[in-house]
Amino acid sequence: MREQNNGCADFDVSVLGLGAMGTIIARTLAERGKRVAVWNRSPGKAEGLRANGVHICDTAEDALRASPVSILVLLNSEVARETLGGLCASGALAGRTIVNYSSGSAEEGQELQKLVSGADARLVKGTIMSYPRNIGHPESYCIHTGDSGAFEDHRELLELLAGHAIFLPWKEAYAFATAINAQTFTAMLSFFEVAGAAHRMGLPIREMARQINDASRFFAADAIEDAIRRFEGAGFDGDQATIDVHEAGFTYIRDYMRSQGASTPIFDAVCEVVRRAQREGYGEADIAATTKIFAPTEAFTA
Amino acid sequence: MREQNNGCADFDVSVLGLGAMGTIIARTLAERGKRVAVWNRSPGKAEGLRANGVHICDTAEDALRASPVSILVLLNSEVARETLGGLCASGALAGRTIVNYSSGSAEEGQELQKLVSGADARLVKGTIMSYPRNIGHPESYCIHTGDSGAFEDHRELLELLAGHAIFLPWKEAYAFATAINAQTFTAMLSFFEVAGAAHRMGLPIREMARQINDASRFFAADAIEDAIRRFEGAGFDGDQATIDVHEAGFTYIRDYMRSQGASTPIFDAVCEVVRRAQREGYGEADIAATTKIFAPTEAFTA
Repeated sequence: MREQNNGCADFDVSVLGLGAMGTIIARTLAERGKRVAVWNRSPGKAEGLRANGVHICDTAEDALRASPVSILVLLNSEVARETLGGLCASGALAGRTIVNYSSGSAEEGQELQKLVSGADARLVKGTIMSYPRNIGHPESYCIHTGDSGAFEDHRELLELLAGHAIFLPWKEAYAFATAINAQTFTAMLSFFEVAGAAHRMGLPIREMARQINDASRFFAADAIEDAIRRFEGAGFDGDQATIDVHEAGFTYIRDYMRSQGASTPIFDAVCEVVRRAQREGYGEADIAATTKIFAPTEAFTA
Repeated sequence: MREQNNGCADFDVSVLGLGAMGTIIARTLAERGKRVAVWNRSPGKAEGLRANGVHICDTAEDALRASPVSILVLLNSEVARETLGGLCASGALAGRTIVNYSSGSAEEGQELQKLVSGADARLVKGTIMSYPRNIGHPESYCIHTGDSGAFEDHRELLELLAGHAIFLPWKEAYAFATAINAQTFTAMLSFFEVAGAAHRMGLPIREMARQINDASRFFAADAIEDAIRRFEGAGFDGDQATIDVHEAGFTYIRDYMRSQGASTPIFDAVCEVVRRAQREGYGEADIAATTKIFAPTEAFTA
């Protein structure tokens, strides 16, 4: 569906901001057959995209006017506001959709939405849940909020960037992105800690890191899958693996890593959490009942 | 390959100890066509296995004599030592292989190996890296140490319990299992913390837990995969995602979760780790360089 274009929508999409993420977004869209215009504050960065048939604009205004939808991948919300702010009166935004992937708070995002609405345009705020190398991957997630009509109009385009392009209301979108980030980054930083501990325990990191990851990935995926079934209504009765059993195991693991000279602040926090669950009386429940120290039991009941 | 059997190896394998894990091991082996004998201290527990064609022994000695290889899944190493100790002089162990999956320290395992060797038998110490429900799964891991010849002789049998049946020397086996456990349990407990935070941020746990898991699994797998490539020799130059960038992001995520009333001790530890990496001068390096605070740089170089 082509939007009203004020007579100058010669391209399918514009990308403003050519850092690592913006560059890969522009290239991915061009490779998938979209006619792409780009703009970057310092002009040199766009040159590498010429080979992909991308059109380079001299100004942000030219880029905004060039397409019905513009994707902003600027340093942060402030730069996004500066870039759009001066152009609201120019008519360059009128009838267009802005998809803002620049990072920033929910408040900044909503402020920008007001500014864009005032210029007769629609704003979609997006958060990309992947590193640039996974732009275009069918398993990547991208969470959107703001104008749901504008999102639906451009869903197909946005799905070229992340197979799972999801839309939620403002608060839920930020909460969802925050939860995904917290889980992802804990798993990642824990892996660095574990790799260091593996070295202290006498394992070669270069050779063993991949095997540690492969084995723990399957093990953790299964454990979390079981917890999700319990959240969904299966309950927290202890059968295979109680909090008491885990607490004993965790303490043994931590003591062994320490005895070999490893520093494990993240795993120490994990041990402290399971011990707190024990203190709060959940020792004989399944390990997933640990969640009860973080959320009231009503959160799990239908 | 059939071992010398002292004339009484009427079964392929015996399983001693019928807790959740032992019961599933016995059932899995019977379902895969093995002739299985079992023994448990309290006799009632074996009854459910009759339907699987499993033979129930009255004593541990009968079970050990019944097969060339016996799998021990007892409460812990002490119970395993008690069970085998009294039978060493009886000749029940002679020429046989004991695969001990009972939990215990490396020292206890090695002590048991001496005891078994003295009775003219071979010991394999194993650590099962899965919950009972994943016994028999091709992606499950089981780490073995002890007598490598005995492991090779029974590898095919042990692979029926876990697709990845791995053998390593004593110290490496314990280190590998410890590292896998630490990474797995951190991912699991972090998920409980994140589920609680999601509730505080206004997301329904029952409905959203699965999506949070799916999205973060792919994101984390990719991030860790990239780190492994760096450990393997690609280096830690910052290009897409420096420690400085992550520190800012982590702080924002933590502050938002806190502002919504969430308690996040594990993620707090994660934030502290990345801040320490920054203090130690790695701010402009890739996030994977965080590992340098846990292991010396030489650990990553060929």
